Amino acid sequence: MTEPASTDDRQVRGGEPDEFGSPYRLLSGSVVPRPIAWVSSRGPSGENLAPYSFFNVVAVQPPVLMFAPVATPTAPKDTLANAVETEAFTVNVVTRDLVEAMNESAATLPPGDSEFERAGVTPVDADRVDAPRVAEAQVSFECELYEATEVGGSTMVLGEVVYAHVDDAVTTDGKLDTEKLDAVGRLAGNSYADVSERFDIERPP
Amino acid sequence: MTEPASTDDRQVRGGEPDEFGSPYRLLSGSVVPRPIAWVSSRGPSGENLAPYSFFNVVAVQPPVLMFAPVATPTAPKDTLANAVETEAFTVNVVTRDLVEAMNESAATLPPGDSEFERAGVTPVDADRVDAPRVAEAQVSFECELYEATEVGGSTMVLGEVVYAHVDDAVTTDGKLDTEKLDAVGRLAGNSYADVSERFDIERPP
Repeated sequence: MTEPASTDDRQVRGGEPDEFGSPYRLLSGSVVPRPIAWVSSRGPSGENLAPYSFFNVVAVQPPVLMFAPVATPTAPKDTLANAVETEAFTVNVVTRDLVEAMNESAATLPPGDSEFERAGVTPVDADRVDAPRVAEAQVSFECELYEATEVGGSTMVLGEVVYAHVDDAVTTDGKLDTEKLDAVGRLAGNSYADVSERFDIERPP
Repeated sequence: MTEPASTDDRQVRGGEPDEFGSPYRLLSGSVVPRPIAWVSSRGPSGENLAPYSFFNVVAVQPPVLMFAPVATPTAPKDTLANAVETEAFTVNVVTRDLVEAMNESAATLPPGDSEFERAGVTPVDADRVDAPRVAEAQVSFECELYEATEVGGSTMVLGEVVYAHVDDAVTTDGKLDTEKLDAVGRLAGNSYADVSERFDIERPP
């Protein structure tokens, strides 16, 4: 098969994942934009709140979300430990107005210090699970732990969504309206992108 | 604890996931923007190519990607069947110039018809795995099947990235440079967002 013209002047290099910086750099830089799970949980020393962008929907019947904390020597493990211990966590959606608070909650705090306080947001008890949610979030998902599985130094934490909180401001006729949700996606490093540059493409039959 | 002023005039409604349209609508509308895995694979009747946005990085050591096809009565199952049978697939990154082609590859085609041909892109044999990749993609990941697990009607397909192809146009000093990658994220329905509206926030220590 002939190469199309558009690829003629390109230089595409093949290599192991670590040849493009590091596997982390390569993957986190090109699997973008990523949605952000702002995960709240309850532990022995209080409430925890932390953002994770290795995150997505897995299933819809029942609805299941997945986030994957990567184990590193310095990464706080509170959220993972809490989710496993309480079998519960809440995923809060990060919109443009909450992105600075979300970022503050990524700080490494002394044990017992609250990321909610640091971030300036309000913990409210979830209705169905043993975890707090973020009062300021426009959408929160209360999750029961479905499964936690180790994969190559990460843990895939799966949660079944058993209850949701949705701000009327992001619904139309009571249904979630994504056009009203000013969500933020994660790029690499310290970079984020909002979803203001939208376009529609009609899906073929 | 007192509610902060910003939440005073808000109406946040709690409910089961199906009370906000459907679990699918609620999750796909609020877990946004999602990265897009344009997955190519080889099957008994030829090469297959299809987009999936329930997709993300799971681990980096070794590097593992996950995509989750949702089983529906009409959803083509070729990619999943191929990935399990050949234990291989390739994930191609969707940039702005490829989004129309990606969309075309979502069409339901008669058996034996090629989504590569329909989309107008070029299949090239992967170097390390038994799958084609998209020649026009600026980044492609060759994956060996790591695990395929059923979760609530979906299948989580995990693949270890064993080899990558990266266009020099999206690297700096040989390393992946996400600022040069014009990636596209999936919203709900027929909507997409590009990553042109970027901003940086310095992460706290």
